[in-house]
Amino acid sequence: MKAYIKEKIKQTAHTFLKNRTPPRQDLPVEHWNIRYDGGELTLYGRSLQTLAEEYGTPLHIVDLKKLADNYHDFSTPQSRSGLNCELFLSYKTNPVPGTLTYLHQFGAGAEVISEYELNLAFKLGVPAQKIIYNGPAKSDASIKQAIAEGILMLNINHREEIDRVRTIAAALGKKVNVGLRVNSADTWAGQFGVSMSGGEALAVFQELLAVPEFNVVGVHCHRGVLIHSADEARSHVQNVLNFCQDLKQSLNFVPQIIDFGGSLSVPTTRHFSDQDMRLARTFLIEPTQPDANQALTPRAYAAIVTQAAEDWFAQHNVPPAKIVIEPGRAMTGNTQLLLTSVVSLRPMEKFCYAIMDAGVNIAEIMQSEFHQVFPVQKSAQPRETYRVVGPLCHLGDTLLYAWNLPKLAMGDKLAIMDSGAYFIPQSNSFSFLRPAIVALNEDGEDRLIRHRERMSDMLARDVVALPDLELA
Amino acid sequence: MKAYIKEKIKQTAHTFLKNRTPPRQDLPVEHWNIRYDGGELTLYGRSLQTLAEEYGTPLHIVDLKKLADNYHDFSTPQSRSGLNCELFLSYKTNPVPGTLTYLHQFGAGAEVISEYELNLAFKLGVPAQKIIYNGPAKSDASIKQAIAEGILMLNINHREEIDRVRTIAAALGKKVNVGLRVNSADTWAGQFGVSMSGGEALAVFQELLAVPEFNVVGVHCHRGVLIHSADEARSHVQNVLNFCQDLKQSLNFVPQIIDFGGSLSVPTTRHFSDQDMRLARTFLIEPTQPDANQALTPRAYAAIVTQAAEDWFAQHNVPPAKIVIEPGRAMTGNTQLLLTSVVSLRPMEKFCYAIMDAGVNIAEIMQSEFHQVFPVQKSAQPRETYRVVGPLCHLGDTLLYAWNLPKLAMGDKLAIMDSGAYFIPQSNSFSFLRPAIVALNEDGEDRLIRHRERMSDMLARDVVALPDLELA
Repeated sequence: MKAYIKEKIKQTAHTFLKNRTPPRQDLPVEHWNIRYDGGELTLYGRSLQTLAEEYGTPLHIVDLKKLADNYHDFSTPQSRSGLNCELFLSYKTNPVPGTLTYLHQFGAGAEVISEYELNLAFKLGVPAQKIIYNGPAKSDASIKQAIAEGILMLNINHREEIDRVRTIAAALGKKVNVGLRVNSADTWAGQFGVSMSGGEALAVFQELLAVPEFNVVGVHCHRGVLIHSADEARSHVQNVLNFCQDLKQSLNFVPQIIDFGGSLSVPTTRHFSDQDMRLARTFLIEPTQPDANQALTPRAYAAIVTQAAEDWFAQHNVPPAKIVIEPGRAMTGNTQLLLTSVVSLRPMEKFCYAIMDAGVNIAEIMQSEFHQVFPVQKSAQPRETYRVVGPLCHLGDTLLYAWNLPKLAMGDKLAIMDSGAYFIPQSNSFSFLRPAIVALNEDGEDRLIRHRERMSDMLARDVVALPDLELA
Repeated sequence: MKAYIKEKIKQTAHTFLKNRTPPRQDLPVEHWNIRYDGGELTLYGRSLQTLAEEYGTPLHIVDLKKLADNYHDFSTPQSRSGLNCELFLSYKTNPVPGTLTYLHQFGAGAEVISEYELNLAFKLGVPAQKIIYNGPAKSDASIKQAIAEGILMLNINHREEIDRVRTIAAALGKKVNVGLRVNSADTWAGQFGVSMSGGEALAVFQELLAVPEFNVVGVHCHRGVLIHSADEARSHVQNVLNFCQDLKQSLNFVPQIIDFGGSLSVPTTRHFSDQDMRLARTFLIEPTQPDANQALTPRAYAAIVTQAAEDWFAQHNVPPAKIVIEPGRAMTGNTQLLLTSVVSLRPMEKFCYAIMDAGVNIAEIMQSEFHQVFPVQKSAQPRETYRVVGPLCHLGDTLLYAWNLPKLAMGDKLAIMDSGAYFIPQSNSFSFLRPAIVALNEDGEDRLIRHRERMSDMLARDVVALPDLELA
């Protein structure tokens, strides 16, 4: 009886919410440089269906023009006197050599957080003076390499790092260019950075300035908490400049590099709220697209950063510092899409399961973040409600609890937009091989930049004599 | 003022909870075959500190004796008349060839859920008659291969799979051995399996029996929801046998294979509750070890399964079926440990951050599951409270919000126990290379079974001519 009443309440709520919720309004596909042409989704004239068939799914497609546009939007001079942001690529966000190299050719630097990423930057030919090394877990070997090569800036994450870096520099007999990661009231804290409040960051700066092995060059402040609006950007930038002002007044230190970090959001994605999840899971209410036209663009963001910096330089008569930004998701997020195929369909009472060949193994971030999903074949059929799940054998492998789409058939393809940030680095090989990556330029020329994972890749690290293991 | 009051309440609650919470009681390390010897943790006489130094951390250590013991505990005859469970290794739980091959030599079969895993089983020399193929996302190519090779059982996940499998079998002109995944009131549902209730599973079985290309051999029922107690095991087994009884009565069908699935829990781990997380995060109350001595052992579980099956065979005068189990975590979970080093320490007001070289990149499951963590060097120093975090640059990279340990120094090692299930398949290469895996036998002989990931592994799939990409 209790279950019956609960179900009745749920049904009533469902009807009420369904009627109250306007149908999902998607941005036009052209927002992403794609278009429906002859009923098929295309990018620069190339059919995504054909690319999917040629390379197999799941498949990442990189839009090289969008990559270049984002880079130039961030780095073109925007302030009144023509200052510009220098962009350092957040390697962790999308660590694919094909993509990184494409952007390095325009002059982008490398923002690395591990020994592997530091090595990769050198391997890709990035000059030491274009490398910034961040993070709370720098290995001794990587600190040594960073100092030996003379990178642009090694950002001390917390006070206890000072002695390690100093000792290694002393042993090498070299000076190291350092900055300090500082936090404002608006940034993440946790294990990251030193707080501006209570004079803590100033005190650590004073320590840095007293270390003979250190060439103190800069200030680093990464918001962590996403920046969605001009106000949030202005507030972040002002916090950093106010700290620079404190440094100047208290310690007579003027940074040569001001590193405003990353954290600008992608206009077409947003974090899911608990309510979004509950509504979708329990009442099959689709999540909605954020209003991308209200979002802060890379160009507008760069203008805010450079103008505020320029004003501060002028007001306090200090020489212009290098203005560094490290946008991760806003740089590469919307430059890529993920094609996935329907492996099986399973109609249920209130919705249909669409079992795809992409799941949380390669798209984990979709569990916490809205991503637009378009059918690759246009259809005039009425929309039905799908629960879009991956191929793994656990209930957690759900990409969308509710998503209305024209009727799907086996083998149909979906395009998951904005797969350029955190999809690839957070991918694993749980039961399924990782996808290939193909780049398209604006002439529609395609080039494979990363192979689909093969069994030989999966077993490359295994050193056991197969099938007989001699250890028994 | 409000913040002040909130902080005061938190402090009072903290003191109250701290006093009320008994100190953490760890199981003796000997529970895992390890021991402190000369102040150092050892496994079969080998110093874990020395192994960590030799191979580098993070490092997985596989206990081969424990692997063999678990296998034999599950598969030794336990019922009165000497029936035994046939164990099929859940490939997804720990897909490392060195480990799988070690167990296949004893006669373990392979339980696979993807084309890759099916291929791997063949590659490792597993006979087709030792392979069971499950999952909701079987590719056409893999179905074809499974039929062509004549595997023991392909379990239909949902009704819509019937036509696909049938069509492929017909094209091959071969019969395929099938089972059906069914659900009871106690199992997962979602996209998995067909419900016993309302006659749904019976109806689908009837369809299967009418397909000329199908050789219907079995019933598959995977609980999904973990089994912790004898009562839960008995209830699951009885649900499956009751369904077999329905099959016999309604369709005159007696299965040759009854596959009880997996889901037995690991005695020394448990899921975190929301309260565990809140207490640890806000009040620094450590999570507690489950009572491993109350847990259902593999041997006791196998006895329940085989005895119940034997009773059913006898009672209904049916020929004994093959009794299949697919334990994943209970088979390999407690056969492995993960060594990790302190990269940096950061004392805060109420606790100290221990920044490790292992984070959610390779130990994601620690965010939802209790794992015992021991210091590798024994120390008589009083315990201090640590927040154990990984090396990644985001706040989510926290392994333990509160964990009391004797004072740590840089480079100190921790042993994270029970890393044999889901740690490796859910690992990614987010900024840091994946760890090596070393196996130890009971004579203390070590053998590297998987290399640490190298830059060459990371770049093996990249086909871009570096550093110049010609696509611009």
